[in-house]
Amino acid sequence: MASTDTTTIVAPDSLPVIEITRDFRAPIAQVFRAFSDPELIPQWLGPREYEFVVDHLDVRSGGSYRYVHRDRDGNEFAFRGCYHTVEAPTTAIQTFEFEGFPGEVSLEFMHLESTGEDVTRGHFTSHYRSLEARNGLIASGMERGLRDSHQRLDELLTRM
Amino acid sequence: MASTDTTTIVAPDSLPVIEITRDFRAPIAQVFRAFSDPELIPQWLGPREYEFVVDHLDVRSGGSYRYVHRDRDGNEFAFRGCYHTVEAPTTAIQTFEFEGFPGEVSLEFMHLESTGEDVTRGHFTSHYRSLEARNGLIASGMERGLRDSHQRLDELLTRM
Repeated sequence: MASTDTTTIVAPDSLPVIEITRDFRAPIAQVFRAFSDPELIPQWLGPREYEFVVDHLDVRSGGSYRYVHRDRDGNEFAFRGCYHTVEAPTTAIQTFEFEGFPGEVSLEFMHLESTGEDVTRGHFTSHYRSLEARNGLIASGMERGLRDSHQRLDELLTRM
Repeated sequence: MASTDTTTIVAPDSLPVIEITRDFRAPIAQVFRAFSDPELIPQWLGPREYEFVVDHLDVRSGGSYRYVHRDRDGNEFAFRGCYHTVEAPTTAIQTFEFEGFPGEVSLEFMHLESTGEDVTRGHFTSHYRSLEARNGLIASGMERGLRDSHQRLDELLTRM
């Protein structure tokens, strides 16, 4: 797949995985906070023109979350999962399900590392149930939502 | 891989998955209860000669668990995860991690179906991060623990 901005997306032929790498111009503690603070997540996660409605964001090991993206016509897209591990400032491991495709649960690993002064590299790997599920997600345009999210995250990190 | 008793274990070459199928001689509601009741799980899960020590078993969608298998010499093997979905009487989706291999988190799907009068078929699929992780688990002897667990579960279902 193509890269967008500084976001690199790899979808290997052999495994039902998507691997995303992205550098952020901020210290690791700040990037981790943007990914784990229930007040901050709604400010950047998802397509820009969607409203982010929190059902619950209990961001801790053993917690869970559910949120809704609502578009301008009132259509709702709900997502939910549980947090296996949330460990500052490097690690989050969580499940993810779009309620529009019930049962297609994936497992997501986030690992942050400092790669320079105020530069943090994020490694994001999602594991899907099958190559079909992974390829279907890519075909559905996940890349656009991801690009929007990362640009909004850059803006948030600048404000912070 | 070989089958043990009526337990069938399949580890496909191409995907980091283990697929287990097993029939239980009990109604689906009873089998589901054995898998989801915090009072019952310690009675069958794990090798027979190990003590099952509950840290917490909060078996519900969005809950989490941690338990310890303690052998006769006092060695402890701890396992933990979060419950993405617990939906009676058919479905459980949860993460799984052996704390001895931190970070090697897998995602487990359980689906129960009635296949006859008082016969319930369980489908258990575990998704690992890599073929190496999956193959390492098989080499470590997971099959023995699984066989013990299913035999103990049969005994519990008979008592119920």
